[in-house]
Amino acid sequence: MGSASIGYQSGISARFDRNLNLRRSDSTVSSSRPCNVDFFRKSFLSAASSCTHKKEISNGARVCSFPNTDEKLETPLLDSIETPSQLRNLTVKELKVLADEIRTELRSVLWKTQKSVKPSLASVELTLALHYVFRAPVDKILWDAVEQTYAHKVLTGRWSSIPSRQKNGVSGVTSRLESEYDSFGTGHGCNSISAGLGLAVARDIKGKRDRVVAVIDSVTITAGQAYEAMSNAGYLDSNMIVILNDNRHSLHPNMADGSKASISALSSFMSKIQSSQIFRKFRELAKAMTKKIGKGMYEWAAKVDEYARGMVGPTGSTLFEELGLYYIGPVDGHNVEDLVCVLREVASLDSMGPVLVHVITEEKRDAETTNIVNDRRTYSDCFVEALVMEAEKDRDIVVVHAGIEMDPSLVTFQERFPDRFFNVGMAEQHAVTFSAGLSSGGLKPFCIIPSAFLQRAYDQVVHDVDRQRKAVRFVITSAGLVGSDGAVQCGAFDIAFMSCLPNMIAMAPANEDELVNMVATAANITDRPVCFRFPRGAIVNKNYLVPAGLPVEIGRGRVLLEGQEVALLGYGAMVQNCVNAHSLLSKLGLNVTVADARFCKPLDIKLVRGLCENHKFLITVEEGCVGGFGSHVAQFIALDGQLDGKIKWRPIVLPDGYIEEASPNEQLALAGLTGHHIAATALSLLGRTREALLLMS
Amino acid sequence: MGSASIGYQSGISARFDRNLNLRRSDSTVSSSRPCNVDFFRKSFLSAASSCTHKKEISNGARVCSFPNTDEKLETPLLDSIETPSQLRNLTVKELKVLADEIRTELRSVLWKTQKSVKPSLASVELTLALHYVFRAPVDKILWDAVEQTYAHKVLTGRWSSIPSRQKNGVSGVTSRLESEYDSFGTGHGCNSISAGLGLAVARDIKGKRDRVVAVIDSVTITAGQAYEAMSNAGYLDSNMIVILNDNRHSLHPNMADGSKASISALSSFMSKIQSSQIFRKFRELAKAMTKKIGKGMYEWAAKVDEYARGMVGPTGSTLFEELGLYYIGPVDGHNVEDLVCVLREVASLDSMGPVLVHVITEEKRDAETTNIVNDRRTYSDCFVEALVMEAEKDRDIVVVHAGIEMDPSLVTFQERFPDRFFNVGMAEQHAVTFSAGLSSGGLKPFCIIPSAFLQRAYDQVVHDVDRQRKAVRFVITSAGLVGSDGAVQCGAFDIAFMSCLPNMIAMAPANEDELVNMVATAANITDRPVCFRFPRGAIVNKNYLVPAGLPVEIGRGRVLLEGQEVALLGYGAMVQNCVNAHSLLSKLGLNVTVADARFCKPLDIKLVRGLCENHKFLITVEEGCVGGFGSHVAQFIALDGQLDGKIKWRPIVLPDGYIEEASPNEQLALAGLTGHHIAATALSLLGRTREALLLMS
Repeated sequence: MGSASIGYQSGISARFDRNLNLRRSDSTVSSSRPCNVDFFRKSFLSAASSCTHKKEISNGARVCSFPNTDEKLETPLLDSIETPSQLRNLTVKELKVLADEIRTELRSVLWKTQKSVKPSLASVELTLALHYVFRAPVDKILWDAVEQTYAHKVLTGRWSSIPSRQKNGVSGVTSRLESEYDSFGTGHGCNSISAGLGLAVARDIKGKRDRVVAVIDSVTITAGQAYEAMSNAGYLDSNMIVILNDNRHSLHPNMADGSKASISALSSFMSKIQSSQIFRKFRELAKAMTKKIGKGMYEWAAKVDEYARGMVGPTGSTLFEELGLYYIGPVDGHNVEDLVCVLREVASLDSMGPVLVHVITEEKRDAETTNIVNDRRTYSDCFVEALVMEAEKDRDIVVVHAGIEMDPSLVTFQERFPDRFFNVGMAEQHAVTFSAGLSSGGLKPFCIIPSAFLQRAYDQVVHDVDRQRKAVRFVITSAGLVGSDGAVQCGAFDIAFMSCLPNMIAMAPANEDELVNMVATAANITDRPVCFRFPRGAIVNKNYLVPAGLPVEIGRGRVLLEGQEVALLGYGAMVQNCVNAHSLLSKLGLNVTVADARFCKPLDIKLVRGLCENHKFLITVEEGCVGGFGSHVAQFIALDGQLDGKIKWRPIVLPDGYIEEASPNEQLALAGLTGHHIAATALSLLGRTREALLLMS
Repeated sequence: MGSASIGYQSGISARFDRNLNLRRSDSTVSSSRPCNVDFFRKSFLSAASSCTHKKEISNGARVCSFPNTDEKLETPLLDSIETPSQLRNLTVKELKVLADEIRTELRSVLWKTQKSVKPSLASVELTLALHYVFRAPVDKILWDAVEQTYAHKVLTGRWSSIPSRQKNGVSGVTSRLESEYDSFGTGHGCNSISAGLGLAVARDIKGKRDRVVAVIDSVTITAGQAYEAMSNAGYLDSNMIVILNDNRHSLHPNMADGSKASISALSSFMSKIQSSQIFRKFRELAKAMTKKIGKGMYEWAAKVDEYARGMVGPTGSTLFEELGLYYIGPVDGHNVEDLVCVLREVASLDSMGPVLVHVITEEKRDAETTNIVNDRRTYSDCFVEALVMEAEKDRDIVVVHAGIEMDPSLVTFQERFPDRFFNVGMAEQHAVTFSAGLSSGGLKPFCIIPSAFLQRAYDQVVHDVDRQRKAVRFVITSAGLVGSDGAVQCGAFDIAFMSCLPNMIAMAPANEDELVNMVATAANITDRPVCFRFPRGAIVNKNYLVPAGLPVEIGRGRVLLEGQEVALLGYGAMVQNCVNAHSLLSKLGLNVTVADARFCKPLDIKLVRGLCENHKFLITVEEGCVGGFGSHVAQFIALDGQLDGKIKWRPIVLPDGYIEEASPNEQLALAGLTGHHIAATALSLLGRTREALLLMS
């Protein structure tokens, strides 16, 4: 397997010609040409050597060819690096070798996991250049997306300890608790500019002089928060550097050509001019004069300059300028010389306000590494099959999807109904209100968002959907624990924050059959919003054939197994764990009742009342936080008088803490939600403490 | 009182000269000059007459002078309008008279309320022009902010019925349930583009041809969702019209000059060219060719065109173009002729994708109308005074505020510590992560967001603050019911969605003393996040002098009144209602216990356990939804065995529905949260049903 690489059009003569043409056509750019001759000479030399290197790559003779991941490859240079400060003893040429070694190392460790490693492989040179130019941890480097941070982790002395510590692979989550080099934790993407601006403002107030560099991804920058942050950064005018890591992974492939900047010799040259001190000082001067004199000549001149640069820059460049960030780019993210050169210029300047450096990286060159085949059938697979069946019958059904990554199963729907499928990317707020608009327009939207990301659109769920009783069908994926994605993508809170909404119908399928029926149920609801949640994992029956869904009666649960003394009332996938508990208890001669609530709202009060009246103990079980299903049951049985001595209630919920990366089973055990835990709780309630302890040992 | 108006620089000759200069300097714009001579002639005539009219205005001889609001003024033209379709029988000149009548009417009805009426007064001409050109309800007009919609309500036949229906004034909330002319409900601002795009896409799928017009405010457009929506609109390329109602109400006054477009004769002329069919068709052709041929000449030409227009347009115009919207403007929002002319051109075009029309309106001209003096001292006043005292002692304390409007009390802090005060406007997501960054940088941020708007930043609270244990102090204002702002700004859910977070300390002050102490408590917490909520209303003691705050022990509640049989456990301001219930019950010879929980998390388990052991009944009271304080109490007492027959628990929470506009007392009564309700619940539990009924009658 050799990695495909892209040959760039370059060459000194072509670069010069274009540059001259440019100057002739635009006097403003010409007049602001930097006079720093040394700077030019240096960049020519480095660019020339880089071109030679590039040609080698495109001829396939690249040092870093794709490794056979079964054998341990040598990484002598990497092995000699313990802290980022040691990088500064290396030459730029050695940095290139190191980049290849890091890629080798990342592949050998990460290929077995399901981690998305492409963004980290694509940003190895960027990571190296950042740590080469800036002096972390005094200077603050902020990463935006978990997937980008592996090279940073390799360089900051955590690599050796992490694989052994985490059974299910390594985590890309940065955390100040883990390393002083992690200035701020990676979260759900798009947080780096906001957090970086906070650090920059705090630095200014504290009178310090460290530099703040916030890396943002071209996928996560589509989220509204990034605009809020850039706009505020432009207003506050604090010194900070935003790196737009444009990894050419476009959400909309048919737009990719138009929206992406092409890296040519011209753009490399332009970036260097833009980042040069002389040019920026000229602009700063113009800005200062404009502020003093007000409207007039200088403002006009500044504007001509801005737009002229926008015209030679890629699409999108003036957008950043309009928001108040000084745009530099595009820079080739795999050319270490160019990166180091531009970053050095940017780093050397004071009092210039926020700067955005547009770096182009290529994910495709390493695309082969993470094609992990997954032969499990998941809840998502079943959901999509069921939805396609409903959509065949009902032409009004449309899908809105939001999130960084789309579950591969959704491609089935997209291919079958391309005109009824809207993937809006990382724009959850818009996705929800857009769905409400589609509903107002007479369609039946299914709005698919992972539980953890629905948190981003909570206000839109409340005010644009629930308060207005819009029939939007929320499909909450990755509900509950998510295994190797740990706490970052864990969907712990949705039962609580959705079920408290007055008009919302909240349900959860116990298994694949119920899921299929709930798709049909949701399709049938046209007068109010509804949501249903399902977990990320595999379904029970691998060979399950998805039948036509049968709508469930709203607010009607069901008793699965009739027993005595103890009733286990499960919500969603936890019903299976209740059934497991039933099996364990049967072996001990205890016959408990198992019920599937199906609905958290409206609660099946007849079912719950029946369970209270016929049992001594009621155990509610859910894969969610306090305030959710159990709380709704408690509210009802308290007001119904059932808790006044008739029934003893025990709620089992997710623990009050964040559960880090582990296998799904390990996480369930940590959370105390396994069949064993449920069974042990029942035994304890009945005073059979010893058996409970034996069960857990 | 005469309204000040602004004299615009205009005149046909000046217009011509500028236009010729423009053409000479840019060949692309010149070549795309519209050939529709009639169009030009017409716009000249209308513009000329408009200029004359304008001069009258600047001489102070305007028909619509500010009315004496005590007397009922005649509005004969308005009285003749029952539906928007009747507008189309009027001449443009009559529309101007009508505009003045509507302003008169709005002032006479709204001046007594605390409603912000300025945005509606400023957008009267825009509203008229929209209803004159578009044919609602077939065409869909969406409003973004509640404050803008009063003129729309006047024109759509709801005016006479509303004031009588709502005791506390009229509501600006649009709702499809209220009128077929309300295409989508106004929510928290910034939802109109997303919802409008949904309607546009639904229309296309359904094969209809109605037009969609989404109005967005220059304040709400700062919210990230607006960018998500515009970017998606640009990509989907559905026909829709976005009206940016730039009401010149800048968040940052010192930026106002630079960021606002000046309306000159040139801009009026440019807007008309931009909106003309010929020009737009030329551009459409260029776009189509670009798509076919790919990169090359045409893309370059399109870009030159785009940036040239950006250069003559105001700051911000290319931002919209970059997002994929065709920009037209700026248009004078008080010139009905210009508005009608531009909107007609825009409305007449098919297959042109999304268009943004930038309309400039002036709030200042009617600023005098809503200076309502408020002599009550509020929780916010006390909070700010206490925070200023803390900030005097501790230089690390900074304030981040998010939201459309800032509580006036915050000006005290802003003026005292201008460098430590950050008002980011409608950018709640950014506000939260920015606060987390400030905390990481060693400062002590107090992040002030109304409860309902904190919903917008929930994910950032979870992942950028709570999971990372950042010491951000969330000040949740307008918690619970909010009187005349009804369901839109009601803060019902924050106890539930904040208290379930693992690292969060959640507290609520029972009164002004407790509030002051909680400010000190929050300032002292440096290792984890904390939030405290307080209501919008007035404090108990009008002459309260804010003392130095004394930190409260974390997780420690207090018993206020010792009694028997029934324990009332209140959270936040509801503690006062529990005290009221105590007074009522005392008169009936019943001496109950009243306790102030102070903390929902960590719960004072010693206090709760004590109440359970010494009483027959425990009533929890909170101004929040199910899943909040009561649920946390229930979780604990269930697991502690207290519910196994030891105590009978009754939770009192907000009802499961949205409570519309009413006075605070009426709302509390509707919610069942008054002292009378609490006392009646206690009486019922003790079997004294008749007394309970008497109390409620």
